[in-house]
Amino acid sequence: MRLGVCYYPEHWPEARWADDAAAMVAMGLRQVRIGEFAWSRVEPEPGVFDWGWLDRAIDTLGGAGLRVILGTPTATPPKWLVDAAPDILAWDRQGRVRGFGSRRHYCFSSQTYRQEAARITRAFAGRYGMHPHVAGWQIDNEYGCHDTTLSYSPAAREGFRRWLRFKYRDIAALNAAWGTVFWSQDYGGFGAVELPNLTVTEPNPAQVMDFRRYSSERVVRFNQVMAGIVREHSPGRDIMHNVMGFVTDFDHHALGADLDVTAWDSYPLGFLEQYWFSEAEKVRYARTGHPDIAAFHHDLYRGCSRGRWGVIEQQPGPVNWARHNPAPLPGMVRLWTLEAAAHGAEYVSYFRWRQFPQAQEAMHAGLQRVDGAEAPAAAEVRAVAAELAALGAQTVERAPVALIVDYPGLWAMEAQPQGADYRGIELLFRAYEALRRLGLDVDVVSAAANFSDYAMVVAPVLPFVDEGLVARLAAFEGQVLLGPRAGSKTADFAIPGALAPGALQALIPLKVTQVESLRRDVRHAGDGFVVERWLEHVESALAPELATDDGHGVLWRQGGVRYLSCWPDAGLWRAALVAMAGEAGVAVTTLPDGVRMRRTAERIFVFNWGPDTVDPQPFLGDDDVTKELPVAGVLIANC
Amino acid sequence: MRLGVCYYPEHWPEARWADDAAAMVAMGLRQVRIGEFAWSRVEPEPGVFDWGWLDRAIDTLGGAGLRVILGTPTATPPKWLVDAAPDILAWDRQGRVRGFGSRRHYCFSSQTYRQEAARITRAFAGRYGMHPHVAGWQIDNEYGCHDTTLSYSPAAREGFRRWLRFKYRDIAALNAAWGTVFWSQDYGGFGAVELPNLTVTEPNPAQVMDFRRYSSERVVRFNQVMAGIVREHSPGRDIMHNVMGFVTDFDHHALGADLDVTAWDSYPLGFLEQYWFSEAEKVRYARTGHPDIAAFHHDLYRGCSRGRWGVIEQQPGPVNWARHNPAPLPGMVRLWTLEAAAHGAEYVSYFRWRQFPQAQEAMHAGLQRVDGAEAPAAAEVRAVAAELAALGAQTVERAPVALIVDYPGLWAMEAQPQGADYRGIELLFRAYEALRRLGLDVDVVSAAANFSDYAMVVAPVLPFVDEGLVARLAAFEGQVLLGPRAGSKTADFAIPGALAPGALQALIPLKVTQVESLRRDVRHAGDGFVVERWLEHVESALAPELATDDGHGVLWRQGGVRYLSCWPDAGLWRAALVAMAGEAGVAVTTLPDGVRMRRTAERIFVFNWGPDTVDPQPFLGDDDVTKELPVAGVLIANC
Amino acid sequence: MRLGVCYYPEHWPEARWADDAAAMVAMGLRQVRIGEFAWSRVEPEPGVFDWGWLDRAIDTLGGAGLRVILGTPTATPPKWLVDAAPDILAWDRQGRVRGFGSRRHYCFSSQTYRQEAARITRAFAGRYGMHPHVAGWQIDNEYGCHDTTLSYSPAAREGFRRWLRFKYRDIAALNAAWGTVFWSQDYGGFGAVELPNLTVTEPNPAQVMDFRRYSSERVVRFNQVMAGIVREHSPGRDIMHNVMGFVTDFDHHALGADLDVTAWDSYPLGFLEQYWFSEAEKVRYARTGHPDIAAFHHDLYRGCSRGRWGVIEQQPGPVNWARHNPAPLPGMVRLWTLEAAAHGAEYVSYFRWRQFPQAQEAMHAGLQRVDGAEAPAAAEVRAVAAELAALGAQTVERAPVALIVDYPGLWAMEAQPQGADYRGIELLFRAYEALRRLGLDVDVVSAAANFSDYAMVVAPVLPFVDEGLVARLAAFEGQVLLGPRAGSKTADFAIPGALAPGALQALIPLKVTQVESLRRDVRHAGDGFVVERWLEHVESALAPELATDDGHGVLWRQGGVRYLSCWPDAGLWRAALVAMAGEAGVAVTTLPDGVRMRRTAERIFVFNWGPDTVDPQPFLGDDDVTKELPVAGVLIANC
Repeated sequence: MRLGVCYYPEHWPEARWADDAAAMVAMGLRQVRIGEFAWSRVEPEPGVFDWGWLDRAIDTLGGAGLRVILGTPTATPPKWLVDAAPDILAWDRQGRVRGFGSRRHYCFSSQTYRQEAARITRAFAGRYGMHPHVAGWQIDNEYGCHDTTLSYSPAAREGFRRWLRFKYRDIAALNAAWGTVFWSQDYGGFGAVELPNLTVTEPNPAQVMDFRRYSSERVVRFNQVMAGIVREHSPGRDIMHNVMGFVTDFDHHALGADLDVTAWDSYPLGFLEQYWFSEAEKVRYARTGHPDIAAFHHDLYRGCSRGRWGVIEQQPGPVNWARHNPAPLPGMVRLWTLEAAAHGAEYVSYFRWRQFPQAQEAMHAGLQRVDGAEAPAAAEVRAVAAELAALGAQTVERAPVALIVDYPGLWAMEAQPQGADYRGIELLFRAYEALRRLGLDVDVVSAAANFSDYAMVVAPVLPFVDEGLVARLAAFEGQVLLGPRAGSKTADFAIPGALAPGALQALIPLKVTQVESLRRDVRHAGDGFVVERWLEHVESALAPELATDDGHGVLWRQGGVRYLSCWPDAGLWRAALVAMAGEAGVAVTTLPDGVRMRRTAERIFVFNWGPDTVDPQPFLGDDDVTKELPVAGVLIANC
Repeated sequence: MRLGVCYYPEHWPEARWADDAAAMVAMGLRQVRIGEFAWSRVEPEPGVFDWGWLDRAIDTLGGAGLRVILGTPTATPPKWLVDAAPDILAWDRQGRVRGFGSRRHYCFSSQTYRQEAARITRAFAGRYGMHPHVAGWQIDNEYGCHDTTLSYSPAAREGFRRWLRFKYRDIAALNAAWGTVFWSQDYGGFGAVELPNLTVTEPNPAQVMDFRRYSSERVVRFNQVMAGIVREHSPGRDIMHNVMGFVTDFDHHALGADLDVTAWDSYPLGFLEQYWFSEAEKVRYARTGHPDIAAFHHDLYRGCSRGRWGVIEQQPGPVNWARHNPAPLPGMVRLWTLEAAAHGAEYVSYFRWRQFPQAQEAMHAGLQRVDGAEAPAAAEVRAVAAELAALGAQTVERAPVALIVDYPGLWAMEAQPQGADYRGIELLFRAYEALRRLGLDVDVVSAAANFSDYAMVVAPVLPFVDEGLVARLAAFEGQVLLGPRAGSKTADFAIPGALAPGALQALIPLKVTQVESLRRDVRHAGDGFVVERWLEHVESALAPELATDDGHGVLWRQGGVRYLSCWPDAGLWRAALVAMAGEAGVAVTTLPDGVRMRRTAERIFVFNWGPDTVDPQPFLGDDDVTKELPVAGVLIANC
Repeated sequence: MRLGVCYYPEHWPEARWADDAAAMVAMGLRQVRIGEFAWSRVEPEPGVFDWGWLDRAIDTLGGAGLRVILGTPTATPPKWLVDAAPDILAWDRQGRVRGFGSRRHYCFSSQTYRQEAARITRAFAGRYGMHPHVAGWQIDNEYGCHDTTLSYSPAAREGFRRWLRFKYRDIAALNAAWGTVFWSQDYGGFGAVELPNLTVTEPNPAQVMDFRRYSSERVVRFNQVMAGIVREHSPGRDIMHNVMGFVTDFDHHALGADLDVTAWDSYPLGFLEQYWFSEAEKVRYARTGHPDIAAFHHDLYRGCSRGRWGVIEQQPGPVNWARHNPAPLPGMVRLWTLEAAAHGAEYVSYFRWRQFPQAQEAMHAGLQRVDGAEAPAAAEVRAVAAELAALGAQTVERAPVALIVDYPGLWAMEAQPQGADYRGIELLFRAYEALRRLGLDVDVVSAAANFSDYAMVVAPVLPFVDEGLVARLAAFEGQVLLGPRAGSKTADFAIPGALAPGALQALIPLKVTQVESLRRDVRHAGDGFVVERWLEHVESALAPELATDDGHGVLWRQGGVRYLSCWPDAGLWRAALVAMAGEAGVAVTTLPDGVRMRRTAERIFVFNWGPDTVDPQPFLGDDDVTKELPVAGVLIANC
């Protein structure tokens, strides 16, 4: 696994570049990403290009032995373009234009912007496509970040109408699909359809769902066009995009299909702080990140581009953008790096080389401090570079478990949560966490995947199921676990005529006759678990495998297929997974809280994220390994 | 009492209508409400009407023996109308147009919309006014729902100016009434007055109060015009509107004066979850609703149309629109139905017949599931239909207690709460709760009511008092209890020159010299009660009947008139009510927590909303009744 | 010290004026402020003036022996002006026009408004400038109140662009200063710069910082122009403005330079309720105010106009504008008055004479009730007037401690908090509180002050340091305490090349290499203190004077200079201040919780804000004083 770094030559005097490049190499870095926000410096005026500095930067960095990953700068259209074509701007849900002055201010539906983006992308690719130092490309930057997938602009409205016309052909078909007979929502033509914002009460969820699909496709199509331009001019180079953590507004599987490598930006402390983790988790893991945040995304993004992935931005110290921004515990930068290796990354690239003393990210740490001295992470990077060299390449093998992540399913849960705290992504994450606490390796796959070589398939959030999926699950010989609301929606976002789980009734004969969303203190206790948030009433000839003390079946089974008819807590996830693993013949290991394991073909990696030293011998079953795995420590054992 | 149901023939294939009608009748239902959102299907294009389906639906339903209540569809103007006349749309407080895509998007001040609404109402009434199956009409749907009474549109501004000109005649009169001398707010003419939104800090409360009155009158007038059209074409039929729970933005007494029957929509679980109940109450009563929610509204709306009222939408299972949507406890649909009978409803109509699998309310339960099988409520409905038949008609008699609900008074508390948690509606509700926990039946009346036949009059929120009211109270021979801030405002929203309680000083000689709003942890304890939120300093020759330990008088009495000079907790409400009931010769009964009683001329009904079985013998004083009233149980005893 | 009152003759019948004036004088009042919101009554139509009533009011009040402070009415432009020139209105951060209907709706950047404001100010000053009863002027009212310093109007955009052009001359200089190379933010010209609102994610903090400077300067310049007009027409009279508590949006030192007297509006209960005090403090001090709120502002504003200051609005009872509005404890109006005297006020003026029964402040107490009887405060005022007469003039001497308040530094903490709860003003206040709990008198000074006669200088929030400041601190022979983030920003809002504390490294040799913002439950404990919120990692040859148990140095010292590298709690403030006071030879006294002392040249004042009687003998070391200082009591001892 390569190590690399993100660098902004335009931020620093040209005189420093060579020293910086040499220092990178000396630290063990072999890759450098540049250029992704440099539009205003490459094209300071419309049509006037200043390539000289970038030519020299690439030469200097590449000449020092660094593989250059070149970014296209479309995430930051410059002010002169915004002034010339204000229709490129996105509009927020409140109907306000999202103005210039930060980043990602463009609307994916703007035809003007797509032309301008293609123009600058072509300019970059044309100039550097065959450059010997340019080993790869990053298209744009962090699609979806800052809630930028959805735009409510006039351009988006026009685009959505075109997309609907293409999808439904006949307005009657749209009216039928959305159930517009409800509340007199009938449309007389595609040109009458509005965006689903600023309505008096909630908009039609089928309309929301189509708008989510449309918006996701706009991102994927934008990327596809830009990737195509680059590929045309730069054959043989890796084309990548850097996706974010916990951003699920667009379909990463669809995006990844157009990329050679799905890269992602890993900020374990920032993500812990910003998302829906409990207060106790936010305190406990404040300086390490929750043990499953990075791993979940590693496994997710490994599945997006045929197994090729990397971490193109790795948090090296405190960031500036979370509500609170602590420093990683000593050892964590090494741990995060080795963790990526254990999950099969091609590279880990730290963000950024040197902390920039100005502008929005002035308080974001780098490997060097503002004064040019090394930040605390630098020593860890140098050490782990040596460790990785000694370790050699790691081969990722198919995991025993496939976890299905279906992006449209996540949008459906947002379009119609039915309970204020029903968060699809949280449910997915908790399933992943439960699997990993049992010591299991996991492949995250799309609903279109071939499951046949897995022992277990887990689908926590799968409201949409098509015939092909049902057929593949029916043919699957391993164990299947379906989460609540599986099969609960038709493609048109209707409740299936035969009730949920709809077509999945072919696999497990039950009907969900009623659902309850519950506030957190309304609880149904069971043996080792408590049900909160969500409870389904099930009609079935089956007897439940597990039930609450007050008689609600919560886990149902027929043959190799199980269905969870509630929001499971950690205890219920564990019980269900242990049961299915037993049937599947997959060995599980109860790991101490805060400890995780991950296997490659060559090694077993054990990571300690908890606050105390742990003895790994009991769960590794190996008397030869150390008895003391310290806090933030990593144990690498032979298989 | 009739049972009925809400039905949407336009949602279902015509071939199902006859079977549905037959099944309704078989279940014991005798009434069906239809049509209230069907504008786009009746008039799919401007001026092009498709009556055929509605003709046939009425024939089918009516032919099966169901009384048809026909809704006018003005709550959902279709898209073609919005596109042709965007000035019909409401604007929110933030100055944004409230767009098409859900419902209630019209502005009551739009003259265009009032013409269009009259046109479609006339079309409905003209066609079906004399139809033999049409037994009644519902005008529009849920006025005020989704915060739609107040609109800040240009039309509303114009309308408000006209209304002010009519009210004040001379701008000097307005300036004097509003005290515009304060902060240089003087207006040179009615055309200069703006709506009270988007000001730098709070707007003038007298202006807000007038805007609230204006907005309420717009609702009442809209309804009056539509009701007049229907009445002209459909003489002898009941004209109704379905009002909501806890919506107090317009004056329901004024609305009810133009209706034959005030109908309301009862969603006990949704209302509990959405309103200001404590966390503990929301958990305790999650699956039953707070014991006083439905009853309070029953008694309130019984007082709006000369005693005629009904529940036109009754929650039959989980809804879709609250933050959390649990299922009613088994037995609750029966309990709610019998409760309505005990309060004198003409009918209870469940919402809806069959769960519709699409659009905004796809997750809202019905009597039938999406698959056409019976939902859990169906069996309860069938059973209670039989029970009601056996029970016979119930006669509502005058209650011993009149509780005054004065809508302008509630608006005043919102226009000037003076303490962040001073909620008039909550204070009203807690008074009602306290009365009912003493086993008392209550009539809710307007401030214009004739009190003479009551034993007790309770007015928790009565800032405005006019001469007539003072005279009626002075002449009243029973016991009166006035809440805090009674008489604290003149009609122009000024503090009375003689201080609060203003003209009520004729009844009880005291002056409120100073008021304090207190955060919840700043407490003044008394014997069996604690004062939080609100405390008045009183100057009086009277000695207080009750005082806090630190010497603040909180209950004052002269003759039959009492005044509460604080926000009372349950203990203080109880103490005050027990004292006045004693003087009034009204017997009280301390009911167990969660138990309520209600008497008709024929029966005593006892309802158990609590989590445990209770023994009703002690408080009924009747050894013959059961000793075990189960959870969600109803005991019907002879008087 | 004079006592006075705020009065609105336009609110009352002319027939009452003389009686009111006589009653004021009889109560011991000698000053009256009038006129500051009277524009619409003085100029009811454009160019049509009605001076008669104001002439007579001034004659009546002045004739009764009251010094008249006349307000210019620019805080409330009348409706006819708003209608004629809507460009005078401010725009909020969300891009909405802030409309007419309350106050302070004007935009400081509007050239139209500046002309109109000058016109009306000239009219007032021209008419009354030489009036014998007019002893002083108040320009406008409460700049910044209701978040009105910052406006995002087109006029503000134009003004900001002009200001930037003047500051930077060359757009390249602006681009360099703001680091616009980051995220392609480069501007091609000053006309391309937008205001820093409505961006996709956070705007450039250097841009925000310049906008804050610009906006502050607009306030200062507006006041300067108006003060200049008044001074020209009214030589020899005191020119004042009434600033608010905890409003720090503009530079009060710069404002004060153009005033003769900095007046302020003291609402101890309202401020406690509205700001960031803990829940426990809000309950404990609900009826007294936190003991340091008024004192902090007294000392702050005493430093703004060369020592001349007063309280022009003093809370006399419950106000109307806080979330909760309790009444002051009996004795508090006296205590607050004597406290102002102890801090050297020229006057205390109660707001307002009589409670006005209408409009936005109808619920705001006065010295008279609405019915004209005396409110509870009146007796305290009468008594304290006599006490003050007996006490004689108080001479304020230089305090031993200078506390630096640097407004740009506070804006910097808002432009880039880096942790969600890093509030500069709170940090400042807690330093002040800690000093006062040690019995120390404090002078609050600007960063430009001459420190040489102080024993101690404390600078809790000082991110910007210029050469002059460093030189003054270096030359200073007393003890210096620097708070976290001192010297952390260059003037252009960059991190210093040599890291924080930048130029202050000349005084104390350390570098802040990394900073952590921490959520409240992530704690580092030490001996008698706990670090939360903020922790800096320091590189230094120095050994820390204090460190956490886990080894983080938190207090550093070289010679007389100390640096706090964390957010200190009360324990750490105390430890640091006790240490430096010891070195400085300043005696400290540990006061009981809730007790404060303040010395003049003539007296020692002791105030008891706590809930219990205290014995002041131990900390006064004086056996002759009372042993029982009651709640809300004041002890005045000889020095």
